Amino acid sequence: MQPNPLRYCFESGATALGGWLNLPSSTGAEIMAGLDLDYVVVDMQHGLIDYSDSLTLLASIAGHSVTAVVRVPWNAPDHVGKALDAGAMGLIIPMVNSEAECRQAVESASYPPHGRRSYGPSRAAIVEGPEYFDVAQVSIIPMIETSEALDNLDAILSVNGIAAVYVGPADLAISMGFKPGSDDPAFLTALDLIVTRSDAHGVVPGIHATTATAADRLKRGFRMVTITTDLVALRTKLAEDVTLVRAGLVGDTTQSY
Amino acid sequence: MQPNPLRYCFESGATALGGWLNLPSSTGAEIMAGLDLDYVVVDMQHGLIDYSDSLTLLASIAGHSVTAVVRVPWNAPDHVGKALDAGAMGLIIPMVNSEAECRQAVESASYPPHGRRSYGPSRAAIVEGPEYFDVAQVSIIPMIETSEALDNLDAILSVNGIAAVYVGPADLAISMGFKPGSDDPAFLTALDLIVTRSDAHGVVPGIHATTATAADRLKRGFRMVTITTDLVALRTKLAEDVTLVRAGLVGDTTQSY
Amino acid sequence: MQPNPLRYCFESGATALGGWLNLPSSTGAEIMAGLDLDYVVVDMQHGLIDYSDSLTLLASIAGHSVTAVVRVPWNAPDHVGKALDAGAMGLIIPMVNSEAECRQAVESASYPPHGRRSYGPSRAAIVEGPEYFDVAQVSIIPMIETSEALDNLDAILSVNGIAAVYVGPADLAISMGFKPGSDDPAFLTALDLIVTRSDAHGVVPGIHATTATAADRLKRGFRMVTITTDLVALRTKLAEDVTLVRAGLVGDTTQSY
Amino acid sequence: MQPNPLRYCFESGATALGGWLNLPSSTGAEIMAGLDLDYVVVDMQHGLIDYSDSLTLLASIAGHSVTAVVRVPWNAPDHVGKALDAGAMGLIIPMVNSEAECRQAVESASYPPHGRRSYGPSRAAIVEGPEYFDVAQVSIIPMIETSEALDNLDAILSVNGIAAVYVGPADLAISMGFKPGSDDPAFLTALDLIVTRSDAHGVVPGIHATTATAADRLKRGFRMVTITTDLVALRTKLAEDVTLVRAGLVGDTTQSY
Amino acid sequence: MQPNPLRYCFESGATALGGWLNLPSSTGAEIMAGLDLDYVVVDMQHGLIDYSDSLTLLASIAGHSVTAVVRVPWNAPDHVGKALDAGAMGLIIPMVNSEAECRQAVESASYPPHGRRSYGPSRAAIVEGPEYFDVAQVSIIPMIETSEALDNLDAILSVNGIAAVYVGPADLAISMGFKPGSDDPAFLTALDLIVTRSDAHGVVPGIHATTATAADRLKRGFRMVTITTDLVALRTKLAEDVTLVRAGLVGDTTQSY
Amino acid sequence: MQPNPLRYCFESGATALGGWLNLPSSTGAEIMAGLDLDYVVVDMQHGLIDYSDSLTLLASIAGHSVTAVVRVPWNAPDHVGKALDAGAMGLIIPMVNSEAECRQAVESASYPPHGRRSYGPSRAAIVEGPEYFDVAQVSIIPMIETSEALDNLDAILSVNGIAAVYVGPADLAISMGFKPGSDDPAFLTALDLIVTRSDAHGVVPGIHATTATAADRLKRGFRMVTITTDLVALRTKLAEDVTLVRAGLVGDTTQSY
Repeated sequence: MQPNPLRYCFESGATALGGWLNLPSSTGAEIMAGLDLDYVVVDMQHGLIDYSDSLTLLASIAGHSVTAVVRVPWNAPDHVGKALDAGAMGLIIPMVNSEAECRQAVESASYPPHGRRSYGPSRAAIVEGPEYFDVAQVSIIPMIETSEALDNLDAILSVNGIAAVYVGPADLAISMGFKPGSDDPAFLTALDLIVTRSDAHGVVPGIHATTATAADRLKRGFRMVTITTDLVALRTKLAEDVTLVRAGLVGDTTQSY
Repeated sequence: MQPNPLRYCFESGATALGGWLNLPSSTGAEIMAGLDLDYVVVDMQHGLIDYSDSLTLLASIAGHSVTAVVRVPWNAPDHVGKALDAGAMGLIIPMVNSEAECRQAVESASYPPHGRRSYGPSRAAIVEGPEYFDVAQVSIIPMIETSEALDNLDAILSVNGIAAVYVGPADLAISMGFKPGSDDPAFLTALDLIVTRSDAHGVVPGIHATTATAADRLKRGFRMVTITTDLVALRTKLAEDVTLVRAGLVGDTTQSY
Repeated sequence: MQPNPLRYCFESGATALGGWLNLPSSTGAEIMAGLDLDYVVVDMQHGLIDYSDSLTLLASIAGHSVTAVVRVPWNAPDHVGKALDAGAMGLIIPMVNSEAECRQAVESASYPPHGRRSYGPSRAAIVEGPEYFDVAQVSIIPMIETSEALDNLDAILSVNGIAAVYVGPADLAISMGFKPGSDDPAFLTALDLIVTRSDAHGVVPGIHATTATAADRLKRGFRMVTITTDLVALRTKLAEDVTLVRAGLVGDTTQSY
Repeated sequence: MQPNPLRYCFESGATALGGWLNLPSSTGAEIMAGLDLDYVVVDMQHGLIDYSDSLTLLASIAGHSVTAVVRVPWNAPDHVGKALDAGAMGLIIPMVNSEAECRQAVESASYPPHGRRSYGPSRAAIVEGPEYFDVAQVSIIPMIETSEALDNLDAILSVNGIAAVYVGPADLAISMGFKPGSDDPAFLTALDLIVTRSDAHGVVPGIHATTATAADRLKRGFRMVTITTDLVALRTKLAEDVTLVRAGLVGDTTQSY
Repeated sequence: MQPNPLRYCFESGATALGGWLNLPSSTGAEIMAGLDLDYVVVDMQHGLIDYSDSLTLLASIAGHSVTAVVRVPWNAPDHVGKALDAGAMGLIIPMVNSEAECRQAVESASYPPHGRRSYGPSRAAIVEGPEYFDVAQVSIIPMIETSEALDNLDAILSVNGIAAVYVGPADLAISMGFKPGSDDPAFLTALDLIVTRSDAHGVVPGIHATTATAADRLKRGFRMVTITTDLVALRTKLAEDVTLVRAGLVGDTTQSY
Repeated sequence: MQPNPLRYCFESGATALGGWLNLPSSTGAEIMAGLDLDYVVVDMQHGLIDYSDSLTLLASIAGHSVTAVVRVPWNAPDHVGKALDAGAMGLIIPMVNSEAECRQAVESASYPPHGRRSYGPSRAAIVEGPEYFDVAQVSIIPMIETSEALDNLDAILSVNGIAAVYVGPADLAISMGFKPGSDDPAFLTALDLIVTRSDAHGVVPGIHATTATAADRLKRGFRMVTITTDLVALRTKLAEDVTLVRAGLVGDTTQSY
């Protein structure tokens, strides 16, 4: 049985910090999982990661003190089932905009009588042990990322079986008529509303952040906050490195060719 | 025919800056190749990269304004031949410690009568064009990274057919009795000697560096300087990100679990 | 054109025995396909296998005297179409719970006017030959694995175009309120009902079994019985081997570290 | 920002010729993208290509003067989103048979307020640049390949946001009761109708062709014509080569074994 | 046990025709192996193929009536051993220029007392059966491709254990001072010499050819002739297709963009 | 820093039991590493495993309480260096037949001044920590598997830096004129000699075994014994399963087709 700090945080009220994988690199996953984090997300929606990659990444994360979470590409039973059979102990489901869609997400992730998940936990039973069927406590985490979801917020939050909700700020901003990276007051008010209503329903409020926005999100009361992403870190640092050295090359500040 | 800024730098006397790939990520390669660099190295020696990966990385680098270079795992004709057939236009060969080893490196990379390379430029002929056999100007770059190589420096530099030498500072330091990252005066003197002797032989002095050491290496006269590495950039930035956010979490400065 | 013993069994009334692949190992597939079996299933639902893996596995199975069957991850036209284009000559479709779902499965697998399959049998036309479009006799095999499917059994069995049904005993047991591995009389009665009704409709009754349960399932009249699974065989044997040797090490019966 | 000749053709009225990839070979993609073509299609429906392969193929196409197009396996938001995030600048969507399905295709490919695409252009932002969100002009191209689609032709063509339609002649023929490769007058009349109505709606008429049928399709007024496919080219040429040489072996015209 | 037509040809005096794989495509391998050929070569020297690819290709070739041959990247025991363990029943070894190098090739491929091959035929024992160690009759085929090898021809041909020699005409031409594709009389005389001397030693003369040169090579007496290569076929046909269609587009004979 | 039970056994005198991986399956590696074993070997010589696979397997083994060992394909510095950089903490080197070859093995695996390993522990530094260079205690384990090695046994055992020797019984038997699986007295005497001399030199005697031979090998005094292999376990169990069920099918004891 793997450690499950995300679940611990959810149950104890502690704040969970996470890292995000967009690259299909097992070494990147080992680096991320070795940091002082509570969960690591394998992003199969916008990440450059498919099912086979996810198996490799999950195997690379295992053995570290972080919960392995998968964001599935879509709220569909095949994606949900395969991610869980692969051993995900947390599941972020994008574009959950209504109570019905939330209920569908929970049902896809739960065995009868609570849902319609099909039995066959190939890798999950290997890493979580033979009692996986009885005791597995997967954290089901629908995303709130549209105006429509905001309109249906209380209905979504009242669905049995969800541990947290996870805000996709770029999509939420776009859906509200802003751009990715918005800090419009209306947008920030929406974030606060999600925290307040989640707390009221006993659901953990979570959000996708960057190292730059994490402090603000934590201050607003989010208790599951993703603070860094491999692809962003790589792009940012490489560009910084090149800019820095080029700047020091007097009279030769651009590519020589 | 792909652009070859590394060759242009070598011929014009301009300084070439490069990026280094240790991860088998095509997206990482696209990011690196899109920066303001003259060459990108696919490291098959210490990088987590095998031959199939190298094909993907070289295809991802192609179409950008950088020269694709491969560091082969060892000074052996099979490694050299496959890297060239895959389309490498620069070749860094590790552990060249004597004139004989240098000659062997050149011969492995050259068709008769200059060497013993076998003909069959599968991908090279696709990206460099049908006249590849006649005009291909691959830059052959042996590494100087042991005391033994220092002892044989002039002999190595006098071998016909090499465009540059490339210092491996960690191995050179270890070989001299220091640790990786050394800045012992004896070590720095060795660096200067390599620059001086290379210049004397009309061979470009190159060196592996980091963003931190690049300025010093450039000042010393190296004209082929690798300034950033994907794996290092990723590790560094992710660790910084987590440390920064954790530090802001008062009363919760370590993993919650 | 590949041999099709599964089809032969279905048509002759002989019993078909099969092997099940959960691992994406081409060598495992070659081993399985070399055994005295009638069909081998590439399990894309609970197996650790994605589409690319399935191509490799199907190429590894080809040339052996077994029918290549694919279990798709879900009853959806994209999954069905890609598995058939890849050359599957049998198709197991999970979670078919109603006549409408069964009809959808058949339509996804059939060209017009019988269905809505899109034309483009990339690999199928290579291994089955140019007349694939006219004569291909793919065996369409919906799964019966819920109480709901039991309720709709006759309606499902009456859908034109299905060759067999395939019981998923773990899911059926869970759906009936039991645990995987159940041998509750009510569960066994359900199995017998499926055999009886299938026979009445001229549909072959099939079931997922283990080496331990196969004899019972065969006795009950199932005529398509999967008797072994690579992942289960590997786990079981390795654990047995280690237990056996450890037991012989007197005074050292657990890991030394 | 990559060159976009397909878009240029669409806007200038020029005819676009394309190549089609069914094999997951990065070298095949480099060969195809190096030819005198306007677009190259990565076929994820009938091609032997999955999501990871598509990333490699798109990286291999980049840097050439062709537009990278993806045919998704199905008209579904997860497939559409992942293809666009991977950097496809053209999108062929199969089996669009009604105005509603066409609208759904457009919405899956468009950010709010025009659609429901989720934001996270992982690779697209790398190769197209930071302003991808604002200026990206992806060409959305639904397929017309059934009688039902013919019946709904004007309704489909009137949906806002589509740049072209793309005829799947094999499926269209089958749906009309003919065989793949049909040249029944009724079938050819249907092709002409699609050209006429597309032109009337200001939508570019496109079609899948072979080298043999291309001239006819161009003459009929199609302005986006795929003229060659890697898998077909490979099969055809290899078979021709072997036949040719065997024919020259007097008294030994078949396999010796 | 797989069919071994190459061996049959060698023993019966029949001429063996072969196909050559430079691409790591399992589907390409299935196409090639389905043609009227006696052997198919997985080229690990100049092909874009590594060890893992070779396993997939060998599994795709198995089950067809052709002998699976591997050209190893170099005359080295690790390459030879792994290719044989993977199930190659023919072995082409490049750059065998002396009796000693030929002896080394044979020893790398033979178990004691005839050589130094290490035992562990992982896949070979699966596809060739349990008696592989006793009866395996691998065809060892050194390449003749340099002037040096010509000088040592009789010595090379007299080494016990080789079934054939295989001429690499491009390398041989280059080594003799000509270009790849040479038909200089001196070069053709060398070919004839190789045939004559091989026949004298009871060794089959083989050669790498193209569809264009095959007839000439067969006429000269070569009895193992490779007549087509996947990569060449693909490049040639695609270029022809595009040229043909472009030529038909009056007033628009080049890329529109 | 990963746990290192193999090292612990070597230092404490406890017996180390191991599992062997011949299949490139990350799930197989997770299963094996989860058993009650002290070490797991990734076999790159006879296993169906290449360098990229080894990275995945090593990442899958990490986090379990076993030492990750790699058997390299050959006693060559490139293989040794890449295995160590990938994080192997034990290294089995085949075909070490003399003191000079043993010395070369040790030098390939050791940094100066003890050897010639090149510095760049890409993955090793991630999983073993920043102090890897100073404290890494890799266990270097040459194989004894020929008569020649027996002749040079004391010389080999006296080389500084080896922790154990590892007998390859199949090769040793073949080299002595027997078959794999031999239990000829002369062969068994050789085993006993290896144990005695190893003990005398303070080197741990190790051997490759099966579940069937393990007890005997342990009784003879071997203290590093591999007791099970994934590929063997899979083949054995699948064949047993099929035989068992077929035997129960009265009147139908072979494949129906």
